Amino acid sequence: MAIKTLDVQKDILDANDILAENLKSRFEKSRVFVMNLMSSPGAGKTSVILKIIDHLAKKHRIRVIEGDIASDVDARRVGAMNIDVVQINTRGACHLDANMILGATEKLGLDGSGLLIIENVGNLVCPAEFKLGEHVKVMILSVPEGDDKPLKYPLMFTESDALILNKIDLLPYTDFNMENLRQIVVAMNPRISIFPLSAKTGEGVREFTAWLDEKIRSVE
Amino acid sequence: MAIKTLDVQKDILDANDILAENLKSRFEKSRVFVMNLMSSPGAGKTSVILKIIDHLAKKHRIRVIEGDIASDVDARRVGAMNIDVVQINTRGACHLDANMILGATEKLGLDGSGLLIIENVGNLVCPAEFKLGEHVKVMILSVPEGDDKPLKYPLMFTESDALILNKIDLLPYTDFNMENLRQIVVAMNPRISIFPLSAKTGEGVREFTAWLDEKIRSVE
Repeated sequence: MAIKTLDVQKDILDANDILAENLKSRFEKSRVFVMNLMSSPGAGKTSVILKIIDHLAKKHRIRVIEGDIASDVDARRVGAMNIDVVQINTRGACHLDANMILGATEKLGLDGSGLLIIENVGNLVCPAEFKLGEHVKVMILSVPEGDDKPLKYPLMFTESDALILNKIDLLPYTDFNMENLRQIVVAMNPRISIFPLSAKTGEGVREFTAWLDEKIRSVE
Repeated sequence: MAIKTLDVQKDILDANDILAENLKSRFEKSRVFVMNLMSSPGAGKTSVILKIIDHLAKKHRIRVIEGDIASDVDARRVGAMNIDVVQINTRGACHLDANMILGATEKLGLDGSGLLIIENVGNLVCPAEFKLGEHVKVMILSVPEGDDKPLKYPLMFTESDALILNKIDLLPYTDFNMENLRQIVVAMNPRISIFPLSAKTGEGVREFTAWLDEKIRSVE
């Protein structure tokens, strides 16, 4: 008898990929553009989302899915801006998966095209492995985290279509080397777009939202 | 026939607990005090370790295990201080487990008592679930991450014996509320010790190393 090996981790990822493909078809059919937003805890995902709403809510219908292990702090911040939002609590799981997004989109509805932002769990590792049917993966690195992060967490940087470098208002108080970061990231992922900005002061936000606006228009 | 369910995740954690217990016995027998150091990426784990070495290397033999998904950036920083260090590359895994520590301690040796610091993978989620045979779990939160993190990543805060609040030199440039953080954390985990410090300026470091020094002496 031939021995067959069951690779549980691989099977989980394969099943997720199939669901993610199915989700992507639904998004395309509804002409909803989907952005999967990932970063470490506290890099500024929710603050960036609030800026995107400021800049783009008049042009596109925006919906948000908030992924957190616990709490609904972020969903309440987004909901206060009169935006449709669904909170997913993963109850310990370190990332969102396609099945969770399936459930959330059923609650949220996909009518009327626009932008769907998925705020992933704050984690620079696990979310990079799980497709959610998104059109683009956008990651945030914040200045205080340091310019050596691409070498330590390579998958997130190679998987992302855009890198937002947030909290540039803190550049004067750190030894962060922007040119060093840029060189390392582009060598790892030549197709990545890099947007230095401050969600706090607003500096640089327009360049990112213009990039996003163009992407949304391409599916609407 | 009764149906039996195999909970793969639970089995992995149970197996890890058994190995961790075994490791803890070895550490006790060798009178080596073990600290498992955890945080988000870029909160300052390696910088804090370098400060601990500055303050305590004359009093205790210090060894370090560096856990990273990829690269040996941190191990080289520690090795440059003439400290025995072993690098673990997890090749994608988002946390260290007891089996990895078993392999690393065999390379490092446990003779002559002292302090073993385990720098976990930068991740505020998964490392909290895996015991490594440590005497204490110490977590770092850095000021730029924000004071709302305990609500979003509760397990790390409830599992830790000490919370280092790093980068207090950035307090004037953020809206971080120290009293707010302290109240939330103590309500979640009344036995936690909190140490605000700056690994950059050195402020507050002595209070933490004095706490650690006392712990090390208790097993030596």
